[in-house]
Amino acid sequence: MTHAATVLAMHSEMHTLFPNRPDRWGWMDTEGDIEKTIATRGSDVDILLSASIEKLDKAMLDRFPNLKMIASISAGFSNIDLEECRARNIAVTNAPGMNSGDVADLAVTMMTALLLRMPQSQSYIMTDQWVTEAGPIRHSLRNMPVGIVGLGAIGQEIVKRLTPFGVDLKWWGPRPKPEIEIEYVEQLHDLAAQCRGLIICCRPDHTTRHLINDAIFDQLGPDGALVNVSRGSVVDETALIAALKSGRLGGAGLDVFEPEPTNSARWANVPNVILTPHQGGATYETLFAQAALAQSNIENFLDKKALLSSVL
Amino acid sequence: MTHAATVLAMHSEMHTLFPNRPDRWGWMDTEGDIEKTIATRGSDVDILLSASIEKLDKAMLDRFPNLKMIASISAGFSNIDLEECRARNIAVTNAPGMNSGDVADLAVTMMTALLLRMPQSQSYIMTDQWVTEAGPIRHSLRNMPVGIVGLGAIGQEIVKRLTPFGVDLKWWGPRPKPEIEIEYVEQLHDLAAQCRGLIICCRPDHTTRHLINDAIFDQLGPDGALVNVSRGSVVDETALIAALKSGRLGGAGLDVFEPEPTNSARWANVPNVILTPHQGGATYETLFAQAALAQSNIENFLDKKALLSSVL
Repeated sequence: MTHAATVLAMHSEMHTLFPNRPDRWGWMDTEGDIEKTIATRGSDVDILLSASIEKLDKAMLDRFPNLKMIASISAGFSNIDLEECRARNIAVTNAPGMNSGDVADLAVTMMTALLLRMPQSQSYIMTDQWVTEAGPIRHSLRNMPVGIVGLGAIGQEIVKRLTPFGVDLKWWGPRPKPEIEIEYVEQLHDLAAQCRGLIICCRPDHTTRHLINDAIFDQLGPDGALVNVSRGSVVDETALIAALKSGRLGGAGLDVFEPEPTNSARWANVPNVILTPHQGGATYETLFAQAALAQSNIENFLDKKALLSSVL
Repeated sequence: MTHAATVLAMHSEMHTLFPNRPDRWGWMDTEGDIEKTIATRGSDVDILLSASIEKLDKAMLDRFPNLKMIASISAGFSNIDLEECRARNIAVTNAPGMNSGDVADLAVTMMTALLLRMPQSQSYIMTDQWVTEAGPIRHSLRNMPVGIVGLGAIGQEIVKRLTPFGVDLKWWGPRPKPEIEIEYVEQLHDLAAQCRGLIICCRPDHTTRHLINDAIFDQLGPDGALVNVSRGSVVDETALIAALKSGRLGGAGLDVFEPEPTNSARWANVPNVILTPHQGGATYETLFAQAALAQSNIENFLDKKALLSSVL
């Protein structure tokens, strides 16, 4: 590039994450209309700043004929057609591993809330059962078996946070990891059968689509709790809703859905659910750290230095 | 006592906690009507097995003219008139410190759920705001200041569980404790001003009645979260409800109320609350451990051995 690089932010809020450097790059002004900007000025774009939401497939890439780089502020990149990028010699960077702690905070809180029967407790008070009956007695979290599906960065942060509660932690993943101290269970089905709670934080891909389905819900059972902070595709959500409504499964905490955004009609009259709008990793602190990494990647790309977190 | 001791359980369910030992003691059969049993056979009772709920004041003690011992399965004993017991030479035992971990589980989960804005998130989905808007961005728990009021057995269990979340823990109590590693703040008012969340787990007595009031809510502010697992009397609940309704305080998690049981009308249209029916310590595991201690205390009392957890 002989000119300063032109960067298009796929979300208008991204402009605030880091400043222009007029000698090196500048934000493309979209005047609040990204669709019109792409239609009229797509060929001027050198670099896309994106997240994991928008689909960057062949059709979309065709709209940016001079694109040289995609800098994503997300860890995941399943939204990007990497083969097309490779064929077009487009560099792709992501921002991995920065929100593991934030996602673990949410997963652990959802799990302990469900094991403590918080949704049931609130309902007990708000339907005035407490007025006429003694408060219900529950089980202690101590020694309660809790399983983790997928022990990557997020799973390991979950282990750190759950350990002081005294729960009995086990895990399953496609490959055992000898360095992990908690018990490995060889079959997912067996893990679900042994556990009161199951936290899903595995990688979402074609091998894990609907990995969590009716067979797993039945192993968890009427007192069982499921938490999903991976992606909606990993859980058969329609089957999950039926299992919760019938009481075959005790409760669920979901930060991710299939599809997103989910809506209120889908969850009306589904008991014992804790729902959050895909915000496990959506913290200001993580966002700024991810943006800083994207900025460094863009600088290095322009300087022809090694990329800090290259996907391609 | 030349006869086997007669034990009256103040709650019918208590009969199941440990068995008769016909040579030493036996449960008084109430035929499901404790009030009538006391009226007709109160003078036959040697030992009361009680919890922290029923008031054992002078008038009640007058109904048991031959009472020799009160064995409580609770830690707290503010329901018992100890001066009257002393004057009547009635031994009193309790079951302290056994549910600290259970109460801490609930307190920590309430606090992280509020700091993660879980009630707001669920409402965001169930009012279909997510359908038209991007998911909200929140703050990370990491480095978020959280204060603990009272650092006894429960408070110390809370510290263990909150530490891996990376929050910045501080505490206040009437006396500094040099052995505690987290920061001590000398004034409660200052602790509230410095913290995003405040967990109340101090001893409930005449010095802490309404300790947590409007002045504290105002320091915590619109983003602040209060959790109370002590007793309802420690918080000015009417002022709390007004602060939540007006948005002057961000949210509250309450396991204890003033009075108990609380009812649904009191909490209708109060936003961002997590309510549980005084069940912090109400686990089967703790209950059986407390009952086992009460049984041992009764055995030792009858054997004239040292009591294991004597209040008087």
